[in-house]
Amino acid sequence: MFITFEGIEGAGKTTALNYLAGFLQRRGYDCLCTREPGGCTLGRNLRPILLDARTRTLAGRAELFLFLADRAQHVAEVIRPALEAGQIVLCDRYTDSTLAYQGYGRGLDTDYLRRLNEAASGGLQPQLTLLFDLPVRCGLMRAGERNRTEGLTFSEGRFDSESLDFHERVRLGYRALAEEEPERFAIVDAAQPPEDVVLQCRSALEAHWRSQDLNEADMLEEQDNDDN
Amino acid sequence: MFITFEGIEGAGKTTALNYLAGFLQRRGYDCLCTREPGGCTLGRNLRPILLDARTRTLAGRAELFLFLADRAQHVAEVIRPALEAGQIVLCDRYTDSTLAYQGYGRGLDTDYLRRLNEAASGGLQPQLTLLFDLPVRCGLMRAGERNRTEGLTFSEGRFDSESLDFHERVRLGYRALAEEEPERFAIVDAAQPPEDVVLQCRSALEAHWRSQDLNEADMLEEQDNDDN
Repeated sequence: MFITFEGIEGAGKTTALNYLAGFLQRRGYDCLCTREPGGCTLGRNLRPILLDARTRTLAGRAELFLFLADRAQHVAEVIRPALEAGQIVLCDRYTDSTLAYQGYGRGLDTDYLRRLNEAASGGLQPQLTLLFDLPVRCGLMRAGERNRTEGLTFSEGRFDSESLDFHERVRLGYRALAEEEPERFAIVDAAQPPEDVVLQCRSALEAHWRSQDLNEADMLEEQDNDDN
Repeated sequence: MFITFEGIEGAGKTTALNYLAGFLQRRGYDCLCTREPGGCTLGRNLRPILLDARTRTLAGRAELFLFLADRAQHVAEVIRPALEAGQIVLCDRYTDSTLAYQGYGRGLDTDYLRRLNEAASGGLQPQLTLLFDLPVRCGLMRAGERNRTEGLTFSEGRFDSESLDFHERVRLGYRALAEEEPERFAIVDAAQPPEDVVLQCRSALEAHWRSQDLNEADMLEEQDNDDN
């Protein structure tokens, strides 16, 4: 099973991903936590170029192709092998980020981006995408705090420093994507406190499993009392 | 004017490019010599990843997108500004390399690659492309010698170490591209000695200018005696 985590900066994706991985692992599932950009050797070389706030002069198309290069390598080297080995893959950002940021945010044609995503990912789609939705100002404030406390102000602030308008377009883009594919997307209200956000993620996963007629959901529920 | 230099490894493109730039500069033309990958800041970071013989695990699509990222940035940051400033741009490898190597060499669909080239280059086409053609074994032998004498064995040998078959497909691919666009391509017999190769390049440039009804060709001829 392949689960992706999407949303604007500061939405709490990474925290929720780590929580959900722990929750699944305690139930005996073998999980792989990864992210884009930077989930493979190539990506770790590209991540500083893509996210460094000092990379001011990156052309829009160059940015796009770097994200796609990272994705192509990440799918081939990390995600597909893990899925084939039976692991649950939890990935922080994936194809929807390209549509939301380069498409809705930067204005590149989304049909064109879909074809490029298809080529880069070899058609590999997540079964479930958790969309962390919250007001842009709130997300950016959290991202700013995180960057300061983690000393990331210079190393990973390039997207944070885009205009409010840009982030509003990204947020609306994500919501439009979720409307197009309601069976794949689950919208998480990320403005809630973290403990509530992770519960929403669990519920979304259980609902997904239930809808797939897998017995996993029941199994999770039975074990619920041990976990709380 | 935008001139590109194409051909398999060890064809002598770089030597001829430098000669032609000197030849033009002595005649008062302002030239910019550049190359792909690596003609811009981004590309200089990507070149080691793309050409390093130790990068063994690079997925085909990841390789493609990295070359396209380099091209998009190179065109935006270096080539277009130079052309707009009236410089003659001489570029070692460009869009035809993608068609020859990733298309004919690696088997990716060439129509698809043309659309990606179009996106990465913003539609910027060279007026003249010099195709350095020679037997593959001969080119690879020269490339091997160059890598050894320049100590590049490890740093830039990734493509050299592909199979003979791969390089044969690339060579045939280049010839097919030249047949499709005879008005843009000039084929240079790169198996000849260097002094003959550079003369072929000059002749091709003069013939191109003549065909464009520019008076440049006459001007070059008048100054010919000074140069020899």
